[in-house]
Amino acid sequence: MMNNSNVSFNDSDNQFMAQAIKLAQKGHYTTSPNPRVGCVIVNHGEIVGQGFHQKAGEGHAEVHALKQAGDKAHGATAYVTLEPCSHYGRTPPCALGLINAQVSRVVIAMVDPNPQVSGNGIQMLEEAGIAVQTGLLSSQAHQLNPGFIHLMKHKMPYVRCKLASTLDGKTAMKSGESKWITGELAREDVQRYRAQSCVVISSAQSIIQDNAKMNVRWQQLGELKNSYDKDSVRQPVRVVLDSRGRLEPSIDFFKQSSKVIIIGTGLENNHQWPHFVEHIIVNGEPGQIDLEEVLRQLGRRGYNDVLIESGAHLAGAFIEKNLVNELVLYQAPKLIGGDGKNLIEMPSVTKLADAKQLSIEAMTMVGDDIKLVATLSEK
Amino acid sequence: MMNNSNVSFNDSDNQFMAQAIKLAQKGHYTTSPNPRVGCVIVNHGEIVGQGFHQKAGEGHAEVHALKQAGDKAHGATAYVTLEPCSHYGRTPPCALGLINAQVSRVVIAMVDPNPQVSGNGIQMLEEAGIAVQTGLLSSQAHQLNPGFIHLMKHKMPYVRCKLASTLDGKTAMKSGESKWITGELAREDVQRYRAQSCVVISSAQSIIQDNAKMNVRWQQLGELKNSYDKDSVRQPVRVVLDSRGRLEPSIDFFKQSSKVIIIGTGLENNHQWPHFVEHIIVNGEPGQIDLEEVLRQLGRRGYNDVLIESGAHLAGAFIEKNLVNELVLYQAPKLIGGDGKNLIEMPSVTKLADAKQLSIEAMTMVGDDIKLVATLSEK
Repeated sequence: MMNNSNVSFNDSDNQFMAQAIKLAQKGHYTTSPNPRVGCVIVNHGEIVGQGFHQKAGEGHAEVHALKQAGDKAHGATAYVTLEPCSHYGRTPPCALGLINAQVSRVVIAMVDPNPQVSGNGIQMLEEAGIAVQTGLLSSQAHQLNPGFIHLMKHKMPYVRCKLASTLDGKTAMKSGESKWITGELAREDVQRYRAQSCVVISSAQSIIQDNAKMNVRWQQLGELKNSYDKDSVRQPVRVVLDSRGRLEPSIDFFKQSSKVIIIGTGLENNHQWPHFVEHIIVNGEPGQIDLEEVLRQLGRRGYNDVLIESGAHLAGAFIEKNLVNELVLYQAPKLIGGDGKNLIEMPSVTKLADAKQLSIEAMTMVGDDIKLVATLSEK
Repeated sequence: MMNNSNVSFNDSDNQFMAQAIKLAQKGHYTTSPNPRVGCVIVNHGEIVGQGFHQKAGEGHAEVHALKQAGDKAHGATAYVTLEPCSHYGRTPPCALGLINAQVSRVVIAMVDPNPQVSGNGIQMLEEAGIAVQTGLLSSQAHQLNPGFIHLMKHKMPYVRCKLASTLDGKTAMKSGESKWITGELAREDVQRYRAQSCVVISSAQSIIQDNAKMNVRWQQLGELKNSYDKDSVRQPVRVVLDSRGRLEPSIDFFKQSSKVIIIGTGLENNHQWPHFVEHIIVNGEPGQIDLEEVLRQLGRRGYNDVLIESGAHLAGAFIEKNLVNELVLYQAPKLIGGDGKNLIEMPSVTKLADAKQLSIEAMTMVGDDIKLVATLSEK
């Protein structure tokens, strides 16, 4: 594989790749677990074809763009946000498509992050005599697919943990009263995180206690409602950790018929579960499920973008074990005081030197609430 | 008094008043407890004199500006950020100075907030045949002097409460280990708040426990060091709440010889206190000092800008009683978990509806830490 990352690109290269990235972003809420990819085909300075990957099982970005370009792809430059695939999957390899369409040059934002196939697409193109350049707007291309890239590199999904508290780090009153800690716009923002995730993880306890469905509610998607039809909203797979076998098929959670995975330690009661429920048994004891194994199992199934929405104990356990990549924290401009419930519980942190270190990536207002995005150091 | 707030100002009016406000800001760390005031005198479109109030006991802004202008004040326009005073204090009334200098027009950003004298300066000027206009850049002028304005209007000082925690609202480990929760730049920022305040309040417990001096340390003033000589740094009055009479003159706190006020309930031991220590007795019992009375006593002494730097209980007690106007919260990008110590304790808040509501005014990064400025609803 030739890595041309030192090559210099001109202004129109930049502009066309930026357009390909913009196209890729259109798949933000729909491609999961596939990567978001955009493609622009340019002949004599004019865009003759463009496309993006919309949904697993449907055409890749290059397929759409080539189809639109038709004969005009001949001698053209293709801008792709991710290295074209070289293998036969549900669709033929995109590298072959570009070769057959006789493009003369392919500009790639980032190579395939899967070490097993990385560079293969490029090699295929080059062997066909096509000029290939890589690395243009690479960091923007990386941001399109944190989950996909993380899974390929680490065999573990990219894990976001969503939390909400008051300014003094409380999630509820001592009594448990917690409704409406944050405002409507913050709750809409959480819905959009759900909508973009492969998987949401919660605990049996949280689901039973809040009578939660953990689904994406179209009505609460805010401005996204304009882009997605009510019936086309993709539901994330709902994963429930239930180490004590407490879930019952009768709760509201199972009235939403999108896929559920119950991860337990083998203690589940012998219920009649709905058809959309899968069971996974992992190591662990009641209250002590092996969380790394949970994530590894999800990664093995191709789920790369995971959102944890749970209480202080489960969130704390994931963070304590350095299994969280990104924290999304909503802070309501309220103070409750020491009697309130803690944001996270992490019994093993007893010295300041053991405190978990984060790096603030973004800080914005969402309605009256603060939204912080922070990354934890890589496991 | 004529309120000309509907009058329209032109671009040069705006420009000169903005300059007067800029001058006033130069007194940010030195005028306490006096207001920050700036004055610009303009003749035929040119600045002929300008000045600001630097220090209590020294000349007012108008005095400096008029002195610089000399004869050129004749027929000029004076831009002042605060209504000129009309009374004989340590200096003769500034309104009289402007009259004697024969300026022909005075533009005032905001009228005197003291209801007892508000409008008197304007009246004096108008009776002398000078054209007076008010209200130009009024909100910027208000921001110069939150403490001064608040004391005049409410007979109570403006109270800031400084707090620092991790992202999950913890200030220390269970063991008490708390050093370096926030970074150096955040600690420098706190030093600048001390430097601008009339008074810092803490508790005997915090001072004894941390062996704190509560003074301004020039070395830690950051960029401010360039503006202030090491020896010219003004120390805020250090107020200690000591309801149980636990302070001893031998602690390091009393090695800094700037003014101290010990506020107690009459239980102090019969110590030999240094000459710079004043005692105030207020109502209350051990651990239950009357905090409103504390602030009223400070306000009566002219202290208008108060900074609370204390532990979770005292900060919580001030907040609980709605005595805090502004919260300055530094959040270190760390997580400690539920075993850490709480940011504030407010035993009376037991329902979510009783949670204290704030409004976020500013959100910035200070080094690696987040800094939030939030206002609490007016008492």
